[in-house]
Amino acid sequence: MEIRKVLLTEEEMPRQWYNILADIKMNPPLGPDGNPVGPDDLSPIFPMNLIEQEVSTERWIDIPEEVLGVLNIWRPAPLVRALSLEKALDTPARIYYKNEGLSPPGSHKPNTAVPQAYYNKIFGIKRLTTETGAGQWGSALSFACSQYGLECKVFMVRISFDQKPYRKSLMATWGANCVPSPSMETKAGRDILEKYPDTPGSLGIAISEAIEAAVADESGQTRYSLGSVLNHVMLHQTIIGLEAKKQMEKIGEYPDIVIGCAGGGSNFAGLAYPYVCDKINGKEIAIYPVEPTACPTLTRATFAYDHGDSAKYTPLLPMHSLGHTFVPAPIHAGGLRYHGMAPTVSQLAAEGIIEPRSVNQLAAYEAGVLTARSEGIVPAPETNHALACVVEEAKKAKEEGKEKVILFNFSGHGLIDLGAYDKYFSDELKDYALSDEEKACFETCFENHPKPQVLTSC
Amino acid sequence: MEIRKVLLTEEEMPRQWYNILADIKMNPPLGPDGNPVGPDDLSPIFPMNLIEQEVSTERWIDIPEEVLGVLNIWRPAPLVRALSLEKALDTPARIYYKNEGLSPPGSHKPNTAVPQAYYNKIFGIKRLTTETGAGQWGSALSFACSQYGLECKVFMVRISFDQKPYRKSLMATWGANCVPSPSMETKAGRDILEKYPDTPGSLGIAISEAIEAAVADESGQTRYSLGSVLNHVMLHQTIIGLEAKKQMEKIGEYPDIVIGCAGGGSNFAGLAYPYVCDKINGKEIAIYPVEPTACPTLTRATFAYDHGDSAKYTPLLPMHSLGHTFVPAPIHAGGLRYHGMAPTVSQLAAEGIIEPRSVNQLAAYEAGVLTARSEGIVPAPETNHALACVVEEAKKAKEEGKEKVILFNFSGHGLIDLGAYDKYFSDELKDYALSDEEKACFETCFENHPKPQVLTSC
Repeated sequence: MEIRKVLLTEEEMPRQWYNILADIKMNPPLGPDGNPVGPDDLSPIFPMNLIEQEVSTERWIDIPEEVLGVLNIWRPAPLVRALSLEKALDTPARIYYKNEGLSPPGSHKPNTAVPQAYYNKIFGIKRLTTETGAGQWGSALSFACSQYGLECKVFMVRISFDQKPYRKSLMATWGANCVPSPSMETKAGRDILEKYPDTPGSLGIAISEAIEAAVADESGQTRYSLGSVLNHVMLHQTIIGLEAKKQMEKIGEYPDIVIGCAGGGSNFAGLAYPYVCDKINGKEIAIYPVEPTACPTLTRATFAYDHGDSAKYTPLLPMHSLGHTFVPAPIHAGGLRYHGMAPTVSQLAAEGIIEPRSVNQLAAYEAGVLTARSEGIVPAPETNHALACVVEEAKKAKEEGKEKVILFNFSGHGLIDLGAYDKYFSDELKDYALSDEEKACFETCFENHPKPQVLTSC
Repeated sequence: MEIRKVLLTEEEMPRQWYNILADIKMNPPLGPDGNPVGPDDLSPIFPMNLIEQEVSTERWIDIPEEVLGVLNIWRPAPLVRALSLEKALDTPARIYYKNEGLSPPGSHKPNTAVPQAYYNKIFGIKRLTTETGAGQWGSALSFACSQYGLECKVFMVRISFDQKPYRKSLMATWGANCVPSPSMETKAGRDILEKYPDTPGSLGIAISEAIEAAVADESGQTRYSLGSVLNHVMLHQTIIGLEAKKQMEKIGEYPDIVIGCAGGGSNFAGLAYPYVCDKINGKEIAIYPVEPTACPTLTRATFAYDHGDSAKYTPLLPMHSLGHTFVPAPIHAGGLRYHGMAPTVSQLAAEGIIEPRSVNQLAAYEAGVLTARSEGIVPAPETNHALACVVEEAKKAKEEGKEKVILFNFSGHGLIDLGAYDKYFSDELKDYALSDEEKACFETCFENHPKPQVLTSC
């Protein structure tokens, strides 16, 4: 029996998050007047303790005991040697992954949902609103809110709401309320429905609705919560990479290549940022965020100032963006259907510290099925995108005859997204190329916005 | 932060299964002629190496390295202190559970699917057939077959097939073929469909179909695989209880009460038998198998000789049985909808060594939702039955002011059975009382069969 898993005890859990803002230079978010946005401007949307984290440049930030005491429901997550996938690929590469699918909602998302719910709770907030794509984030926030006794309202992108009905059931089991977006409950939703009654929805629209629903509560006891993109979300996710480093040290390994799928950027950042820190400090390591070719934010779109949502409620963020009006093709990896990208991930890509890749949906499912039939676990559609890149790199290692060490983030399991596998097997899934209309969108959408600078961190 | 989980390393995994047949006396299975069935009679259905395990009375049986090397995809399973459930119940009881929901298919079932696939493989078998209720077993065998390169054919009880479409997708992802039962593919299925075209199906019918499909393959390369009831299945599941004992020893605990839900008996037996062994040797401990009141095999039915399937393809087994023609009410815990019970569990109940309990469906879901909102993890409908009993015992401990130690088996997660939670929240689930017709069935169905003896093991 070859050993597969490297475990940590609860006592060995990281006690601090790593903050990439200590190590890279960033363009500030801008308000409607073109001036940098300050903490006070964000206070109707987020509680001040999270805003402080959002702007902090401290390298290490303590994880509260009360947060560790919920994270330990499933953490530390095992580091797994993908022995069977290696055999299936007949590769000299050694492949490792962090299994983030063991959390109660089945993905990495609760790593930030839990601290966000906690900080809102101690700030006196009673109710959180949010959006969700594939449903992973909405489920995670529902779970986290149930742990701290907060109400939770989720606007779910309509196409995913229809494709994945059990996501709503799961959120209800944790006591949350989930509606399809666009909805009639907000002005942002009503405006879109009037223009495009058949829209599949998008994360950009759902974010607008959730922000509006939070700000509209005159009691001041509701705030909005975002599952990706923001600095404090990336921060909370670094527990993945910090655990991975401890685990790999235990077995005397260090990765040559780090891979994560990227929608808003959080699961990628969570695994990669502790290694980005090493790279900034001179370590040689390849770091690949992987996105769908149908939503090629990092690989095709401009580094620009753009809004995070379609109704322009958010500040202008310095990020790779397909345009805040971009509605991505209906690929099944709903968590990767976002027009923008975390500003920190965007900055690192613009600087060339990380090297974005894109893969097609069919290649992603092919890699997912190979993984299910070798490793045994069934990956989420998002995770399949990372896997397609892992398979490519493992094959390259074979061609080159090199013993590469590949580390990737298994962001979640696919047990609630099985309908997509059905469609894959019955040849109903297809690859999407960008239409001319889509290209026009991200070439003109922010023409009048200021331009962010490519700053140099290394 | 209070520590929740007691972990074992892969090196600490048990290397042998515990065989209860070394410690209890059993009535033999009987053939159509009323004489005991020997190994040769079973050889068209099972490979000889598994038949040898079925009849072995060795107390300890080695787990092959090649089996450990697949079990370690998810094992050892954590022992979890249910700290949050304890708080929610405000009980002085300390509640622990084995989390069997972390396996790739999400339940305890692969603990036996993996060795069964392995033993068939080394015996030269190319294809396995089986039945499945809720889909947990069919998924588990599909997963196990994919690990050893075997074909897999699953007959799924029709009501579950319709209620849980994603189970079929999951099996397909592992390369298996799943059809609703009764089907037109077997004589057993066709006969039932002719008489009752609208039957919801039952495990008894699906077993008949799977056995027929195995025996019908004239090449001799197909065998049948059963996910519960049989001695070798109980044997393979004891890895759960053996791990639990090691883990509880590490923290200086020993349970006062051991609880598992019981359909065919395997997840209950898996956790309980190593403790039953202690009880036979004089230890004071309460051991409760928990079944649904809608299918009260142990709590209402007779200890009799009966067939394991509706078409009478199996030998007569000495077991508590509601009658092989009994079709249980359509409760959502499909894995507990079986007319019989493992002969070893039946014998232990008849002797009074274990004390069967029954709970209603609504009480089970109430306990399940309480667990989801406290512990965070969402239990399978079957697991909810164990939880209802845990909640009862924890409340009793509070009334009595006693620090009881309760250990239960969290047999699986409910992420692929979320439709049932939907129905629970919308008041569409109900409790079922046995009808007069049902009672008549299990009072007359085996009148002409020989009677098993209640032998005394202690």
